[in-house]
Amino acid sequence: MTIKAKAYAAQTATSPLAPFDIERRTPGPEDVQIRILYCGVCHSDLHTVRNEWRNTLYPSVPGHEIVGRVVAVGDRVRGFKVGDLAGVGCMVDSCGHCPACAEGEEQYCDNGFTGTYNGPLFGGENTHGGYSQNIVVKESFVLRIRHDEKDLAAVAPLLCAGITTYSPLRHWRVGPGMKVGVVGLGGLGHMAIKIAHALGAHVTLFTTSAGKVADGLRLGADAVCISTDRERMAAHANGLDFILNTVAAPHNLDAYLGLLKRNGTMTLVGAPESPHPSPQVFSLILKRRQLAGSLIGGIRETQEMLDFCAEHGIVSDVETIPMDYINTAYERMLKSDVKYRFVIDMATLV
Amino acid sequence: MTIKAKAYAAQTATSPLAPFDIERRTPGPEDVQIRILYCGVCHSDLHTVRNEWRNTLYPSVPGHEIVGRVVAVGDRVRGFKVGDLAGVGCMVDSCGHCPACAEGEEQYCDNGFTGTYNGPLFGGENTHGGYSQNIVVKESFVLRIRHDEKDLAAVAPLLCAGITTYSPLRHWRVGPGMKVGVVGLGGLGHMAIKIAHALGAHVTLFTTSAGKVADGLRLGADAVCISTDRERMAAHANGLDFILNTVAAPHNLDAYLGLLKRNGTMTLVGAPESPHPSPQVFSLILKRRQLAGSLIGGIRETQEMLDFCAEHGIVSDVETIPMDYINTAYERMLKSDVKYRFVIDMATLV
Repeated sequence: MTIKAKAYAAQTATSPLAPFDIERRTPGPEDVQIRILYCGVCHSDLHTVRNEWRNTLYPSVPGHEIVGRVVAVGDRVRGFKVGDLAGVGCMVDSCGHCPACAEGEEQYCDNGFTGTYNGPLFGGENTHGGYSQNIVVKESFVLRIRHDEKDLAAVAPLLCAGITTYSPLRHWRVGPGMKVGVVGLGGLGHMAIKIAHALGAHVTLFTTSAGKVADGLRLGADAVCISTDRERMAAHANGLDFILNTVAAPHNLDAYLGLLKRNGTMTLVGAPESPHPSPQVFSLILKRRQLAGSLIGGIRETQEMLDFCAEHGIVSDVETIPMDYINTAYERMLKSDVKYRFVIDMATLV
Repeated sequence: MTIKAKAYAAQTATSPLAPFDIERRTPGPEDVQIRILYCGVCHSDLHTVRNEWRNTLYPSVPGHEIVGRVVAVGDRVRGFKVGDLAGVGCMVDSCGHCPACAEGEEQYCDNGFTGTYNGPLFGGENTHGGYSQNIVVKESFVLRIRHDEKDLAAVAPLLCAGITTYSPLRHWRVGPGMKVGVVGLGGLGHMAIKIAHALGAHVTLFTTSAGKVADGLRLGADAVCISTDRERMAAHANGLDFILNTVAAPHNLDAYLGLLKRNGTMTLVGAPESPHPSPQVFSLILKRRQLAGSLIGGIRETQEMLDFCAEHGIVSDVETIPMDYINTAYERMLKSDVKYRFVIDMATLV
């Protein structure tokens, strides 16, 4: 016995997303079945359906910024009951016994977590994501939503864009008295500004677009620097404790590394299709700087982030779209024509 | 009044080192005058005399691994007296008031430390290094030598190769229970092995030369991995807490980043003339790894390193040479034909 669900899938790397029927497992004793209300549209969805990371399993049903309502729970589920709001992020399973899992960092599971879509990280049976009517997920990978229900569409992107920025900001101990740079104002960047601001840091947005200055300030940045302006960039040299670089397109990392103080870290959360130009070793050596990467966040930390955002009134800035608009949304996303996240209203998938 | 000193200098980027007379200042109240007994030969000496970092001031008298005997002290010098052994490393001055200097990390001085040779980091009057009979240095940049006098030649390289490896090993808290990789077995690498071993870590040497396996083990490595052997490299994947990469030639960093555990750091201490091939962002993101750089060490830490090495019986493996052998030594150094550091016996400069 399985549960049927309408969904949108890509059948090949070059085919558009189109209606597709999938099946979900009947909830086992530890499972939660969720009727999906909204699903955010992440750039990873597009990378995956177009096989840009060369590991896509087809048919591909993307979507890992999922919020909805619990419609069934297994016998052993204690944390959720029918009618609760619930969220699902980028992962639906992990090995559970490696050191990373033991420490609640399932995103770094030594055996490879199972993605909400595209299956286990190191290969295995495909999984289908949130561009669908429902999903069945084991309780330990389901998140509690404490935001007001009216904000639900804008909560969805927290499940990926929120945790992807929150986790490194916390890991590198961003807080009051720290000067933080956020590179890029898109889905990730706009969340990074809101969260870093709420954590009490002094936030400077670096963007190539003069048109984004006002938005940067509105979102919580204390300053905005147009990164193509060499003089203004020079004024920030050696001035930042931490930089969260959200830009996925290959770009000159040295221009930002040079803005870090001694012992400063720049963390990359965007994954370009081709490498960045190689950073100069002297950019790292002369101030003992670090270039790092960070991947989403663990389930415990994702819950912490959701609670933090609920407490601070943080949601994503979204444009809600119907399901059949998704291919157009992808084209607009490629032109950065979205402020700052598309969210699919799943009631439109009928 | 100045003090005359015979020295060896390069007059241009293409001229060999040759005898050259220099003058040192008469010691001021805070100065220590040192008769140089031995001076180590660092790859930076060669980079500088050949202007490979495009910032060389000529005539260039290199040498920043200096040990000798105090022959005069200023009125206000309290820590040294005539007859003491003393050392001078890569720096002879810094601003003294920036945050880095205030924390004893003069190597990261915001205003640019003054190199023992080639003058202030950000430009200024030239300074002449240790390929000479004597040097005058302010007391706060002079190091105390506690090693046995018979080991003096082998102590000299600690002043650069020693501190360059000790500082990052300490900064990244290398100690018992940690698995550490050392990439490259040369002047820096052989010190890194000895120091990491003495700090109690499990040390694996990565080298391209099968001929260096026995030496790696003799120096204190617990294991040696031939880095061109893909299978043996794969066996180390995700296995190391920290890597000290001492190789200055451009090479594939991803091969080593992939050996780091979650949260692991690879620190570069070699400065290639041209950049390394760009590391893959996924190498950093998937395990929250860090790529860092580190520059020598502060004066306080250099003293700590010298004391640590004296206590643990650590010196450099050296080949002592006469001054007039230096140009040949450079050619041999370029072929890695030295085990593992040339040290000039300054008694041969007459």
